[in-house]
Amino acid sequence: MVTVEEAQRLISEEVLELDTERVKMTNTLGRVLAEDLYADLDFPSYNSIRMDGIAINFSAFEKGNRTFKIEKVNGAGMPQTILENSENCIEIMTGAVCPIGADTNIRYEDLKIENGVATILIDKITKGQNIHPKGKNRKQGDLIVPKGRRITAAEIGVAATIGKSFLKVVKPPKIAVISSGDELIKVSQKPKLHQKRRSNSFACQAQLAAMNVPSATFHLADNEKAIHETISKILDEYQVIVLSGGVSMGKFDLIPKVLESLGVEKSFYKVYQRPGKPFWFGRHPSKGVKVFAFPGNPVSTFVGMEAYLLPWLRNNMGMKIRPYPKVVLAEEVTFKPDLLHFLQVHLETDDQDRTLAIPRKGKGSGDHANLTDVSGFIILPRGRDIFKVGESFELIQFR
Amino acid sequence: MVTVEEAQRLISEEVLELDTERVKMTNTLGRVLAEDLYADLDFPSYNSIRMDGIAINFSAFEKGNRTFKIEKVNGAGMPQTILENSENCIEIMTGAVCPIGADTNIRYEDLKIENGVATILIDKITKGQNIHPKGKNRKQGDLIVPKGRRITAAEIGVAATIGKSFLKVVKPPKIAVISSGDELIKVSQKPKLHQKRRSNSFACQAQLAAMNVPSATFHLADNEKAIHETISKILDEYQVIVLSGGVSMGKFDLIPKVLESLGVEKSFYKVYQRPGKPFWFGRHPSKGVKVFAFPGNPVSTFVGMEAYLLPWLRNNMGMKIRPYPKVVLAEEVTFKPDLLHFLQVHLETDDQDRTLAIPRKGKGSGDHANLTDVSGFIILPRGRDIFKVGESFELIQFR
Repeated sequence: MVTVEEAQRLISEEVLELDTERVKMTNTLGRVLAEDLYADLDFPSYNSIRMDGIAINFSAFEKGNRTFKIEKVNGAGMPQTILENSENCIEIMTGAVCPIGADTNIRYEDLKIENGVATILIDKITKGQNIHPKGKNRKQGDLIVPKGRRITAAEIGVAATIGKSFLKVVKPPKIAVISSGDELIKVSQKPKLHQKRRSNSFACQAQLAAMNVPSATFHLADNEKAIHETISKILDEYQVIVLSGGVSMGKFDLIPKVLESLGVEKSFYKVYQRPGKPFWFGRHPSKGVKVFAFPGNPVSTFVGMEAYLLPWLRNNMGMKIRPYPKVVLAEEVTFKPDLLHFLQVHLETDDQDRTLAIPRKGKGSGDHANLTDVSGFIILPRGRDIFKVGESFELIQFR
Repeated sequence: MVTVEEAQRLISEEVLELDTERVKMTNTLGRVLAEDLYADLDFPSYNSIRMDGIAINFSAFEKGNRTFKIEKVNGAGMPQTILENSENCIEIMTGAVCPIGADTNIRYEDLKIENGVATILIDKITKGQNIHPKGKNRKQGDLIVPKGRRITAAEIGVAATIGKSFLKVVKPPKIAVISSGDELIKVSQKPKLHQKRRSNSFACQAQLAAMNVPSATFHLADNEKAIHETISKILDEYQVIVLSGGVSMGKFDLIPKVLESLGVEKSFYKVYQRPGKPFWFGRHPSKGVKVFAFPGNPVSTFVGMEAYLLPWLRNNMGMKIRPYPKVVLAEEVTFKPDLLHFLQVHLETDDQDRTLAIPRKGKGSGDHANLTDVSGFIILPRGRDIFKVGESFELIQFR
């Protein structure tokens, strides 16, 4: 039996070897970037006009000129033009390239235009006004997005801007999610009294999918030979195994025996926590496969995924891990067992703009439906019985 | 010109007619549920054993019996068994069905088992202990998940439990994202001085994809006939059009003319906000198509999507809309224009566990890269110039 901190430490020592892959930029939303992104050009790449109006050479205005003959009209996306005569102007649109020979932009609102001549109606203009200078946003070669970033729409837009049609992203590990037990029937079946439909493996798969990590599901019947064959194959083909149920060391649990016979070594069994105490973790030393075996109650497995497997995956995928945010407990909680308590909470905001955690503990670790009413778990540390209103605790948020 | 509130109100009046569709439960992560989910059985569906140990009839203990002959062994997933003689016991595992004739569960830790006889080592047990009663979590027919919920792993697990292999979800609208302008080149091309790579349409598409809404992208060259033909087709085939750029009413913008000639009616043009002031919104009255035309600067389009289109979509998809959370401004901000200001911010937590918004305003609405350094926008209301440290403002979070 280990503490939660010890369990986290032992898991963090297990390293996943992950490849990278080149993926079409438009398909990378939610993936983890595996390369640094640099500006391929200055941004903007030219001195850019900010206002619909005219572009002039400031020296003419300085000399006292107020009327400027319009040489031509230029818009965004048109090639750069030349102001032939510095006493003239070019009528120009937002986003256009500042013409060669011009350096200052005056907006329509400050002009009168008649018969091809623009008259400036104001007295005060400054050299370079309304021109967004080349390279002001970013210089060519600047690091824009560091690797390890989870890709959002913002990164997609930037990747397009710098010409990355493909992005190097982290290849997620191959994960097998295994349920077991003859009592678990298909979702489409009607359970007899002692039966239940399979559900944990689908929830686990969805928790992984929410991180853009695909997984395969397997179901093991209570047959030692079949279990041996299937797990043996999975150990050769997958990097991570998630087991939900089947390792409680009870009279009918065949899986621990099979894992041992196949060379999977225990790192720890049982953690000072509720729910999810009988959590077994191990690995196959030569194959490098990691085995997370969570107790079969749905809330236990769900917590195990959120508190252990997912943070470990993010870390191995190169993401920068932020500490859990803290939230304020809204109701006093008494919890006597000598265990760390992952307490389900609903979140609200109080009138001081703090996030309140409202306990919704549910009816125990079998009460899967309760998870649909909450946004996360707060971590109530071990070694205390009473947790007071207004104290703040770390939050694992999943919604 | 309208206020942000007026723009939101006008948009909210436009209703999208959305169908529903039946989707395989395992493919519904992130989709919006279009049916209420009810418990198909009591949960748990039987009186469930909570501890590995024995099951007895409490009356025997009450009479003074402390030794119980083990009639048989029963485990989770095995059919319910019968305690033939109420003076005996059944050795039983966690999750098993409480045997007929038994009503109380004693754990191994409180027993000695020898030669097929279990001896209870403690004096105090209560009738019904360690039995999780049928229906305690949820009763058959209880509403578990209401429609309008965005589906997470928790809902997937519950759907599996209640036998929903398929779920009725909201069919997202058909959305066309249109970029325009000859200066916009492909991502794979190298831009000339006056050119830029297309990027906004990919960012928009990713913003929609983050809500599990697919979209098609189109690019219009600066050719009135071609624009007319393409938009005409799109009006027949799509429910929502997102335009980025091309409607600034500048000298070279052909799109407003085309939209008008095709019967698209303006609802408003220009909003008292920065960035994104020249936002045009309209609809085709008979075809029911809604047109969101955002100014072409990347930050303007990005804000427009987050502040208008996405909340409107969520609402039309039946999601319960929560008010924006409030966060605390960490640095004084001066903003003089008579506009509401969507200010880009990085988020941190202070030592009172409040969320701090640290301004990262960037270099203007063309500074797309700045979006990769922030988590959202705070809404600084119009009609004020100075926003003080410690004041709190609404947050639109996109990361």
